[in-house]
Amino acid sequence: MRKAIQLALLGGGHVHPNPLVGAVIARNGEFLAGGYHHEYGGLHAERDALKNAADSNTDVKGADMYVTLEPCCHTGKQPPCTQAIIASGIKRVIVGSRDPNPLVSGKGFLELQKAGIIVERDFLRDECDSINKIFFHYITKKTPYVIVKYAVSADGRTCADSGDSKWITGPCAREYVHRMRSGVAAVMTGSATVAADNPLLTCRLEPSEKFIPHNPVRIVCDTNLSVSPDCALMKTAREVPVIIACSKHSFSKNQDKAAVLKDLGAKILCVQEYGGHLSMPSLLCELGKEGIDSILVESGGTLSGSLFFSPCGCLVNEVCCFIGSKILGGHLAHGPVGGDGCSKVSESISLSKPSVRVFGSDVLLSYSVTGNGEEQCSQE
Amino acid sequence: MRKAIQLALLGGGHVHPNPLVGAVIARNGEFLAGGYHHEYGGLHAERDALKNAADSNTDVKGADMYVTLEPCCHTGKQPPCTQAIIASGIKRVIVGSRDPNPLVSGKGFLELQKAGIIVERDFLRDECDSINKIFFHYITKKTPYVIVKYAVSADGRTCADSGDSKWITGPCAREYVHRMRSGVAAVMTGSATVAADNPLLTCRLEPSEKFIPHNPVRIVCDTNLSVSPDCALMKTAREVPVIIACSKHSFSKNQDKAAVLKDLGAKILCVQEYGGHLSMPSLLCELGKEGIDSILVESGGTLSGSLFFSPCGCLVNEVCCFIGSKILGGHLAHGPVGGDGCSKVSESISLSKPSVRVFGSDVLLSYSVTGNGEEQCSQE
Repeated sequence: MRKAIQLALLGGGHVHPNPLVGAVIARNGEFLAGGYHHEYGGLHAERDALKNAADSNTDVKGADMYVTLEPCCHTGKQPPCTQAIIASGIKRVIVGSRDPNPLVSGKGFLELQKAGIIVERDFLRDECDSINKIFFHYITKKTPYVIVKYAVSADGRTCADSGDSKWITGPCAREYVHRMRSGVAAVMTGSATVAADNPLLTCRLEPSEKFIPHNPVRIVCDTNLSVSPDCALMKTAREVPVIIACSKHSFSKNQDKAAVLKDLGAKILCVQEYGGHLSMPSLLCELGKEGIDSILVESGGTLSGSLFFSPCGCLVNEVCCFIGSKILGGHLAHGPVGGDGCSKVSESISLSKPSVRVFGSDVLLSYSVTGNGEEQCSQE
Repeated sequence: MRKAIQLALLGGGHVHPNPLVGAVIARNGEFLAGGYHHEYGGLHAERDALKNAADSNTDVKGADMYVTLEPCCHTGKQPPCTQAIIASGIKRVIVGSRDPNPLVSGKGFLELQKAGIIVERDFLRDECDSINKIFFHYITKKTPYVIVKYAVSADGRTCADSGDSKWITGPCAREYVHRMRSGVAAVMTGSATVAADNPLLTCRLEPSEKFIPHNPVRIVCDTNLSVSPDCALMKTAREVPVIIACSKHSFSKNQDKAAVLKDLGAKILCVQEYGGHLSMPSLLCELGKEGIDSILVESGGTLSGSLFFSPCGCLVNEVCCFIGSKILGGHLAHGPVGGDGCSKVSESISLSKPSVRVFGSDVLLSYSVTGNGEEQCSQE
């Protein structure tokens, strides 16, 4: 199963909004063939493994299949995997995660059992579940899984007094951010960050045997449609998609500007306003409808604050806090999360115990949001 | 030697401003007796080990002695250890750290060698050095080793918008702070923190076999001599020493108040002013003269900022950054380090790669200051 998980991860960044799935066919514990879901619309892991077995003339009759997620039994972009498994003569199927998709949920197991196949469930389930937290979130909530990432100094500053922020962390930590971008459907930032830093927000890493880079859709929260057509994002909008989210009011007031941005390749998304900014619950619903299952937020405090402290509660699922080994100090504090904030510590947004990673002299603390994090938008 | 280091640590908090030293006598690698420097003015580790051997009628002739620091050869509060070692018939002495004290520095080795004892130096030196960084700093600079400790949320806030800060971290992290207090000569805070939180700043832990708690001297930076005689610190000033540091000007203006505080048991220290606050270089020099070799700073951003960004450069040696697993947010940012701050990231105070400790869901990052940290006060 661990091999199947490894295979599943090879699809990272390419299968959105499908789940990552890996499958291994084995006989008496010996590996026969493996496969994974390579890309959205492509062969499912089970069929990929069976195909690889067939291509190498490997007999799978009576063998075991380890698969990280319950095999599907419905026809989507691909025919049901259960039928392929039954036809192959596989004797036993060992499954990690259950599929929360109501079209599958338990029905896949039933179909296999009816055909006389032995089914074992929940094998290394936690490990299998952990690779698909995005899928599980999206399939049940219909909104993207939101990861807020920021880099602060050891005294919690995102920039020096002058606004300079290059670089709080070292090259290894920054390379890891590119890897994170590759694992999500979209990266989101605010128009102020675009104006100040003119970022590309692409994944600029070389492919390797274990890593196939993927460029996320780039989303700019731009209430007033103020983004410059000359910025790096717009200049590359034909190669890597850009979504500009603005208020309905700004859109109707700036139709010419909108047309210019559209001409350059951007998609304009009109969203409700809330307190002078875009309504984050509305925006996430709209993005969910666009098929965006996950967002990495790389922004200033205003945007991240409006995600943590939205009128529907906290909309953030994960926090990735990079801490650089320096002290910036200064009375003018620039923290990574603005918004309304909490008036008492006891009312704060609670996070899980973090996982800790070290990059050179920088540290990454990765948290799941555990409190105030379950409320999701019910606006449609 | 590892056993000797363990023994040395038992003196933690009790030997200021002496070094922590442990000694083990062994024959063919087998433990015969051990000892350590228990408290300032008490037996040195070597003599303590020899005494323990004698008390148990253990013959040490021809045996080896492992000692974490070069044995002294001068008479201070205690007669020289070299003579006791020579008289004991010990055949070989294995030493960890070299003693930077100019009264010893290499002379201890020479004296042993002249008496025909085999001396091996620098054995596990880094480990031995690491337990005495305070001593090495103080003996060479004559100012206290400064550790700044603060607790922030995952978004770098020391408190919520209302000023509420109870509690950013959980009980395990807070217990560790009490342990840190026990390991330093003094704890320092500002008068604003005393007014807001009314802290005791004592070490409130039970003694155990491996830990003998010690209460640090409590220092309040109180430029205007504004501290209330009714605060928890002043009420306990007879049991645990309190030093109130104020400006010379305030002292002469508020002689009556000063007299009241003195009557309650506090010591008043008059210090030069700099920019409306106490001059930190002057204060550290004064505290050094008082025999205070180490300070744990538990304060707000103003005091810590003036230590990081003093006119003589950074006066901080170590940063202990506790990070609680919560998000506080808010536009009004309360960071842990105020002061003048840096206008560019490239001009920041650089820290080492941190050591990471986890307390429940809180994380402690401990850094040494590596850049701008070597300038020390030359005022006397």
